[in-house]
Amino acid sequence: MLHLPFELIDGFDTLYRNNLINSCSGFKSANLIGTKSNAGFENVAVFSSVTHYGSNPPILGLVMRPTTVARNTFENILETGFYTLNHIHKGIYSEAHHTSAKYPAEVSEFRQTDLNPEYKNSFYAPFVADCPVQIAMKYVEHLEIKINGTILVLGQIQDIFLEENLLSTDGFINLAAGNVVALNGIDGYVETKLINREPYARPRVLNETEN
Amino acid sequence: MLHLPFELIDGFDTLYRNNLINSCSGFKSANLIGTKSNAGFENVAVFSSVTHYGSNPPILGLVMRPTTVARNTFENILETGFYTLNHIHKGIYSEAHHTSAKYPAEVSEFRQTDLNPEYKNSFYAPFVADCPVQIAMKYVEHLEIKINGTILVLGQIQDIFLEENLLSTDGFINLAAGNVVALNGIDGYVETKLINREPYARPRVLNETEN
Repeated sequence: MLHLPFELIDGFDTLYRNNLINSCSGFKSANLIGTKSNAGFENVAVFSSVTHYGSNPPILGLVMRPTTVARNTFENILETGFYTLNHIHKGIYSEAHHTSAKYPAEVSEFRQTDLNPEYKNSFYAPFVADCPVQIAMKYVEHLEIKINGTILVLGQIQDIFLEENLLSTDGFINLAAGNVVALNGIDGYVETKLINREPYARPRVLNETEN
Repeated sequence: MLHLPFELIDGFDTLYRNNLINSCSGFKSANLIGTKSNAGFENVAVFSSVTHYGSNPPILGLVMRPTTVARNTFENILETGFYTLNHIHKGIYSEAHHTSAKYPAEVSEFRQTDLNPEYKNSFYAPFVADCPVQIAMKYVEHLEIKINGTILVLGQIQDIFLEENLLSTDGFINLAAGNVVALNGIDGYVETKLINREPYARPRVLNETEN
């Protein structure tokens, strides 16, 4: 095993450290977040930090770095209270990644890519057309992380749209069957294959032997 | 597309809603967190909420639900200040999932599974042996989420141990090459294959046509 102590990591150049730290935590969700400002400017941006915070009520979190291109997304969420989460699939991952390019707020990434906005159910923010899972979100609260100024945005699920064949009889959404991709680090897109769904874990008879 | 509005989701039974909401956000990291109490009791537990919060300093977040088995982990982190993150791979995912069974604090999951603790570099908390990526973490702070009482724990990376062949020349860790798995929902383990690493996104010439 290679050992990278903190002193070594701290001394790496920015690009190397960004790649290393972004890829060391495991696989990440790959979502497109759709917003629209009060002035009517649409925005869509790739995020890899969507995290489950609770099922009842259904709450998802999202990490913002205020100094990046993601700022348009955050401003629109605060201004309007609404946003959408859309799952990136194999057919669009390259165009989805392009939304990380830095455009001014008045230039929609929908215009600069092959991604298309989709409006439905009278929801204010645009969904991304052709995504196998699309979620309408309502802003709840945000918290600032002291150590580096990043912001955790919490939102409540309003509506879930999904391809019918992905939904199992017990509520499980089979993301691999929808060709949903995951992210490895900043720029590595992976396809997936379901190995197994594990049964609910019940305690085994206590093992009395020394470990 | 199937449409699940909030009123319908809110009325689902607990198991169905848990499966649905846990699998709707996209793929999740699959980590084992190793801790040891001041009294010397070892704990290892599966988590799917590890999230990147910053590269400089290197910060990772972790969501705790105080009412679940994860509580031993949280208590040990607060008590000692140290924990480890270990990536679940194809060879151990079933045993790793078993750590979600509810055991008392004095019963180590290391004893009840085929997982083995590994101590190195004088670090207080146990790593999980044979994991392709192992990270030594130091507690930084925690924040409570008002809407449901979940807790976000932030920690700083101290050391990264990894299989040498996974590390690219630019710092990228190729998780698929290490057979690291991802989680779909509560219990769906997926294997992965790298499709591509996308180039850094630079703005394209502005598209003047209507979208």
